[in-house]
Amino acid sequence: MTATNLSAVLFKKGDMRLVERPIPEPKAGEVLLSMRKIGICGSDVKYLYEGAIGSFIVREPMLLGHECSGVVVKLGEGVTNLKVGDRVAIEPGVPCRRCELCKGGRYNLCPDVFFLATPPDSGALARYHVHAADFCFKLPDNVSFEEGALIEPLSVGLHACARANVGLGKRVLVCGSGPIGLSAVLSAKAMGAAEIIVTDIDDGRLEFARKMGATKTLKVTSSDPIVVAQQVRDTLGGMPDCAVEASGAQFSVQMGIRALKPGSAFAVVGHGPNDIEIPIVQAIAREIDVRGSFRYMNTWPTAVAMLASGKIDVKPMITHNFTLEETLKAFEMAKSGAGVKVIIDCEKKE
Amino acid sequence: MTATNLSAVLFKKGDMRLVERPIPEPKAGEVLLSMRKIGICGSDVKYLYEGAIGSFIVREPMLLGHECSGVVVKLGEGVTNLKVGDRVAIEPGVPCRRCELCKGGRYNLCPDVFFLATPPDSGALARYHVHAADFCFKLPDNVSFEEGALIEPLSVGLHACARANVGLGKRVLVCGSGPIGLSAVLSAKAMGAAEIIVTDIDDGRLEFARKMGATKTLKVTSSDPIVVAQQVRDTLGGMPDCAVEASGAQFSVQMGIRALKPGSAFAVVGHGPNDIEIPIVQAIAREIDVRGSFRYMNTWPTAVAMLASGKIDVKPMITHNFTLEETLKAFEMAKSGAGVKVIIDCEKKE
Amino acid sequence: MTATNLSAVLFKKGDMRLVERPIPEPKAGEVLLSMRKIGICGSDVKYLYEGAIGSFIVREPMLLGHECSGVVVKLGEGVTNLKVGDRVAIEPGVPCRRCELCKGGRYNLCPDVFFLATPPDSGALARYHVHAADFCFKLPDNVSFEEGALIEPLSVGLHACARANVGLGKRVLVCGSGPIGLSAVLSAKAMGAAEIIVTDIDDGRLEFARKMGATKTLKVTSSDPIVVAQQVRDTLGGMPDCAVEASGAQFSVQMGIRALKPGSAFAVVGHGPNDIEIPIVQAIAREIDVRGSFRYMNTWPTAVAMLASGKIDVKPMITHNFTLEETLKAFEMAKSGAGVKVIIDCEKKE
Amino acid sequence: MTATNLSAVLFKKGDMRLVERPIPEPKAGEVLLSMRKIGICGSDVKYLYEGAIGSFIVREPMLLGHECSGVVVKLGEGVTNLKVGDRVAIEPGVPCRRCELCKGGRYNLCPDVFFLATPPDSGALARYHVHAADFCFKLPDNVSFEEGALIEPLSVGLHACARANVGLGKRVLVCGSGPIGLSAVLSAKAMGAAEIIVTDIDDGRLEFARKMGATKTLKVTSSDPIVVAQQVRDTLGGMPDCAVEASGAQFSVQMGIRALKPGSAFAVVGHGPNDIEIPIVQAIAREIDVRGSFRYMNTWPTAVAMLASGKIDVKPMITHNFTLEETLKAFEMAKSGAGVKVIIDCEKKE
Repeated sequence: MTATNLSAVLFKKGDMRLVERPIPEPKAGEVLLSMRKIGICGSDVKYLYEGAIGSFIVREPMLLGHECSGVVVKLGEGVTNLKVGDRVAIEPGVPCRRCELCKGGRYNLCPDVFFLATPPDSGALARYHVHAADFCFKLPDNVSFEEGALIEPLSVGLHACARANVGLGKRVLVCGSGPIGLSAVLSAKAMGAAEIIVTDIDDGRLEFARKMGATKTLKVTSSDPIVVAQQVRDTLGGMPDCAVEASGAQFSVQMGIRALKPGSAFAVVGHGPNDIEIPIVQAIAREIDVRGSFRYMNTWPTAVAMLASGKIDVKPMITHNFTLEETLKAFEMAKSGAGVKVIIDCEKKE
Repeated sequence: MTATNLSAVLFKKGDMRLVERPIPEPKAGEVLLSMRKIGICGSDVKYLYEGAIGSFIVREPMLLGHECSGVVVKLGEGVTNLKVGDRVAIEPGVPCRRCELCKGGRYNLCPDVFFLATPPDSGALARYHVHAADFCFKLPDNVSFEEGALIEPLSVGLHACARANVGLGKRVLVCGSGPIGLSAVLSAKAMGAAEIIVTDIDDGRLEFARKMGATKTLKVTSSDPIVVAQQVRDTLGGMPDCAVEASGAQFSVQMGIRALKPGSAFAVVGHGPNDIEIPIVQAIAREIDVRGSFRYMNTWPTAVAMLASGKIDVKPMITHNFTLEETLKAFEMAKSGAGVKVIIDCEKKE
Repeated sequence: MTATNLSAVLFKKGDMRLVERPIPEPKAGEVLLSMRKIGICGSDVKYLYEGAIGSFIVREPMLLGHECSGVVVKLGEGVTNLKVGDRVAIEPGVPCRRCELCKGGRYNLCPDVFFLATPPDSGALARYHVHAADFCFKLPDNVSFEEGALIEPLSVGLHACARANVGLGKRVLVCGSGPIGLSAVLSAKAMGAAEIIVTDIDDGRLEFARKMGATKTLKVTSSDPIVVAQQVRDTLGGMPDCAVEASGAQFSVQMGIRALKPGSAFAVVGHGPNDIEIPIVQAIAREIDVRGSFRYMNTWPTAVAMLASGKIDVKPMITHNFTLEETLKAFEMAKSGAGVKVIIDCEKKE
Repeated sequence: MTATNLSAVLFKKGDMRLVERPIPEPKAGEVLLSMRKIGICGSDVKYLYEGAIGSFIVREPMLLGHECSGVVVKLGEGVTNLKVGDRVAIEPGVPCRRCELCKGGRYNLCPDVFFLATPPDSGALARYHVHAADFCFKLPDNVSFEEGALIEPLSVGLHACARANVGLGKRVLVCGSGPIGLSAVLSAKAMGAAEIIVTDIDDGRLEFARKMGATKTLKVTSSDPIVVAQQVRDTLGGMPDCAVEASGAQFSVQMGIRALKPGSAFAVVGHGPNDIEIPIVQAIAREIDVRGSFRYMNTWPTAVAMLASGKIDVKPMITHNFTLEETLKAFEMAKSGAGVKVIIDCEKKE
């Protein structure tokens, strides 16, 4: 292999440059991937322009990019689930496989996970990337690399909906109409929700939510969660059976707890302030479960199946495309907030 | 109310006649219904022509009919969930509300349930019928009385799919393509199943299954469950994640246990012989759950919501229509096995 | 029956007097009980001395008392689960049996529940009381009336521990060592918890917790929840697997979320301020479920069985005894906070 | 290390001899153990005297022994959870960690598991053995090596009871009073079962069951499962809430399905004939879950905690002790069926 490995290295806050690096070798259980499409996440934008998210601080040069797809070009020792030429979507977090949480079926909570583009762990924004073979999932021919890359943000919604007990015939409240909220809408629709109501403060985002499958939308104009909770019930014609908080706003958590039916689950996935005030007596007297939802687990097989069958369509989320050489322009676009999902094509064009 | 109450009374095995009876009065918590559409179930046919199903024996005159819809014409004391004129679908089983099973959320297993058209409990095949108000569910305008009546057979499929852990992205095996199997197909599709494979011995029934949403079908030609289990896996491209047995055949239970993925659930709903042989070591070593599935619970609200939203369409199941006066002809048609679902219209035509 | 029905009527805030009232008649499905032992709950004390708890306000004369046992003296129509002379413990909340929550197995959340001694619903502090027969549970001979009365507070702990997923081998954190916390300790011990750590600010209460089965106790002296969370882990030799908040303090919720193992459940049962601040990012990133826990459901059969077998011993919680005639003195004692559980004997002494 | 590694090699059916072999080296993630106590399982006896169990056939020389404890004497690369000198209990099955079942939290069903003493995988009956470090669990000082070895058979009962939903206040039926049944009794007792009824055909075994915690026993004398099911209910004073089948007999599965309360779970763990007949209509109409139960998962931490706290006592199960040099004598004893558990001490005595 004489190809070079053009990589978008984030040297430090605000300083990302394209440099050539050696092509890595896959170790036992790993594969070398020729990268195809990579979506830019809000976290990538933060690491580039702010240098940190909470206690995750960019201290050493690293790559960004964790929403990605590629083609297998070399197998490490012992790899049997894939072969050279397979088109794959990549699950970015590789857990330790040995701790109590991994063995108990909740590997997304593994404290020793390697997670792409989360300092000190490097990402995949390059021509070539090495990854654990069992966290690469073969794409059928009718699923594109763009769709494969978007399984990552979709998975956040799938996992949150699972945590919220979304299912057939349920009335689902989704707070916030950003990428996570929209993923929750797509997920809830595919799970057979009877109604999906989305709340947001922006008309354009709510219109997009309806396009993605929301059956009702509510523009939040009051600052009183009790008022908005009643509006949610009125708009739905009843209490929501489950909810996903995807806005990161304290207001939405307060509103959701008050809107929900007794005995229901409220998955909170949106990150905002570290501490928020909640109406705990409401949560006690009506047995609302406020459930943290973190990343995802075992969602790639489901997502691949749903994309292949056409039952979930993530393509409308893609609003902009760039080449790897245009990476900085792509990040500027993502930072601007115009559009929903910016995609970088990592393949070398002749 | 001067109307008369024409009723199809089953006097004894083989002897059903239309007679006028008094219109009953609703007691506290009940409503009087002007009946609209009633579907004929295989059990109705058995009670008419064989006089019994297992230990349920027709000893006294009774009505048949438990798949039904109607219009509320009178409220008993204390009824607040309905008003006169409401169009409703009827859940036929009214449990005791007091036993451990009722209080524990599994009222379908209540030993003291009143269940329409299950001797000694009488059914609803008449112009008028009295029923517990909280087991009548309001139909929106866009759901027809025929659809309302078919919520009962649909519910058998919904409950079985819930027992089988059907859900998003799952590969579902449905054994048998009769009314229950088809209800399971409709249910699994609405729950977001990625693949639904239906097995049967009849080509016409399999074709119908594909029309209702099966993504794969397999005509069973071998008498060896191991062979057919492998054919199921080959056709699906993998092991089913869950299964519903709707044929009542020992063969299907044996085949399903061998086909399923380790750790999966197999809801058995089809009635056949009292005792069957199962490959228990397979079930142990691969931790298959063989779960009995009986009737349904809490499915009407879900079904109404799904019919209203158009996400489940039961109308193709209706193949024949008769009037109440033509009841005997309707039963002859149902007995013949031609078509899927025979409907009787109970309303008096001017 | 010529007996009179001495009753402790709460006429209004601060005004409770013993008056004779007629003995009520049991209606269909009900039984008349000759009351035996009634425990005084913190809520009883509040209604007497403050006249209200939140939106529950004493507006009409009513009785207090909902932790109780008695003897069946008369059967209403249709009662078959009990006979005259049966000694019973009383579950105080009788739900509507008809709503979605009742049918779904969560009758404790029924919005139309009748609940003893919760205005406007009257209590049982009298010689005679009428109650739904299926919410009276027969006591074996070896379970005393005092123990029967204490099933109510024990049930709060049983339900909270169930909501917290307490089970075999688990390390359980219980915040607060009042009656609810102690009930949680008894419950967790009976469920096979490996370790039970109780936190409180009072040495005497912690000593009592150890007597009831706590394997570790921690006196809270720091006001920093992060510090105390670490002390909990250090004392346990690891992170708790589940937790019950029984103090009503915001501090304990904050501390518990930080102490718990990722992926665990935190049942919040203690009532304090309406709104509290919680570390939501901690709850998200470690998928902690903050679960409201309200009253109980289906706990009486379990509690009767455990008391009968001697595997749970509530007797040490009883610290004071009074007669019905001494009711006001009993409430003064309960208000003083000396002791844990004050019991009133309702039986007429010759 | 100049010590030699005396090993009990099973060369072929009926031919086990003690030979010296080289001491193995731990690879990355492994530890070298100086073996201490090893219990003989019924499967070990079968491999020695019959050369096979089902499709597992002894084709190459191998060791037996999978119920074991030891002392860490050398760490492989990267091992951090243990240190030299740690006393440990060994979980014998090491799964692939990469398949859908491993990632989904059911590693006991991993099709690529390495499992001690299950051909072609070799066992641990030697002075030294190498094992995955994360499947070795540190024993506290107050838990002996014998107890550590018995965590394996105990785990079969713990897992079966978990599969059967055993819990606080439940009435548990255990069919069969051999080692698995007794483990289920110990487990159910620790989980807070209110009643545990054990059935068997042997008086001595039933007496042992009572010693281990059974509250009721029933000697099976009738060959009619309906008769015995009624005897179980009569003896318990009600229907069992859950059951564990540990006899391997078709009769017990038939009887258990008929005895159980509607809606309950029946874990089947005992191996007998490949195919058995079950009353499927009973299982359907009363929604009994017949659940295969295979080996165990995540039980060692629980078991260690329960042994350390004294809440489970496995010591009465140990009836015979031998040295490694006496291995053949130990197997003769195990084969004879006298006693419950035969232990071999692998440590070299000076």
